[in-house]
Amino acid sequence: MSQWMDTRELILEAVVRIIGTHGAAAVTNRRIAAEADVSPGTLTYHFATQRDLVRSALASFVADEALRFQEVTCQLAARNPDLAAEQTTLDDIVSSTGDSAAWFEFIIQVAHHPELHEATAGFFDTYDELAEQVLRAEGVADVENVAPIAVGLLIGSQLRRLATGGSVDDVSAVMSRLTQLLHGTAGI
Amino acid sequence: MSQWMDTRELILEAVVRIIGTHGAAAVTNRRIAAEADVSPGTLTYHFATQRDLVRSALASFVADEALRFQEVTCQLAARNPDLAAEQTTLDDIVSSTGDSAAWFEFIIQVAHHPELHEATAGFFDTYDELAEQVLRAEGVADVENVAPIAVGLLIGSQLRRLATGGSVDDVSAVMSRLTQLLHGTAGI
Repeated sequence: MSQWMDTRELILEAVVRIIGTHGAAAVTNRRIAAEADVSPGTLTYHFATQRDLVRSALASFVADEALRFQEVTCQLAARNPDLAAEQTTLDDIVSSTGDSAAWFEFIIQVAHHPELHEATAGFFDTYDELAEQVLRAEGVADVENVAPIAVGLLIGSQLRRLATGGSVDDVSAVMSRLTQLLHGTAGI
Repeated sequence: MSQWMDTRELILEAVVRIIGTHGAAAVTNRRIAAEADVSPGTLTYHFATQRDLVRSALASFVADEALRFQEVTCQLAARNPDLAAEQTTLDDIVSSTGDSAAWFEFIIQVAHHPELHEATAGFFDTYDELAEQVLRAEGVADVENVAPIAVGLLIGSQLRRLATGGSVDDVSAVMSRLTQLLHGTAGI
């Protein structure tokens, strides 16, 4: 990797760290420069505007998330799915998606950048596919229609937990209720 | 209202407007002072720190939201609920909750302020009660357990829509699927 790319990466990682630790409200040029240990001039050399910089950091976050889900989906497809393994995977997903305010800070910042919507839609599609696999292995019918419900509920419940200081168990409980509901029906 | 309260209110409203229009990332003392048309000194006179100021703005947002839901819940309880009226109410709630990135900016900022978690939990409880009323009127069983699923799904789906540039119809579609699912089961 060239020195130019190294510095650019350092700066983007600094933005991701600042949003993750202090929230999007804390992103200032001065703080980015301090966190990445570069001069303010280096910042403006690599990124014309702060909007440019934040957009690049968000794009890299969305790409990383999509990759993460694609990997899990492929691993799941490659092995013989059994229910215990699916449950572990589901638990992992429940606890790692929207597990921090940072995840939501990123997702909601994306709303302000229409040029990132298509990539984010791709990320959510990957998420649906993963949910479909897990639900299919659990014997749920009509997974194509049910998957977006599971994904939406997980995200909404995590946000509620974060905003109210609830525990991850609250989220698991509501997801279990949905699963019970899905087993009690012939599909929709 | 005293002049002191007027100025304080003006400042808080300015913060709410800035978060609503430009996002939490755009909140700076300079911008608040300009938006509220007060001097920077007036800001620090009313609020010791920016964190203080943002917390007060968030508290006022949470209180307003709780009040909004309580009003709708009371109106609903007061009249003879019929399905068409419930549907209209449901549509209103679907389109007005999390209809803008601003709503999520507020909710996620609350996560950074543990002292606001209790009030926010109260707001979500009010939201559950409203969902219970709507679902009960629709003939859904076991509404106490189902309501948090409807609330979580609505919030998660709105966030997805905002981050991917989808339409409100996408959200209505996923909520309808949940309702169909609930009608196809004897409850959980």
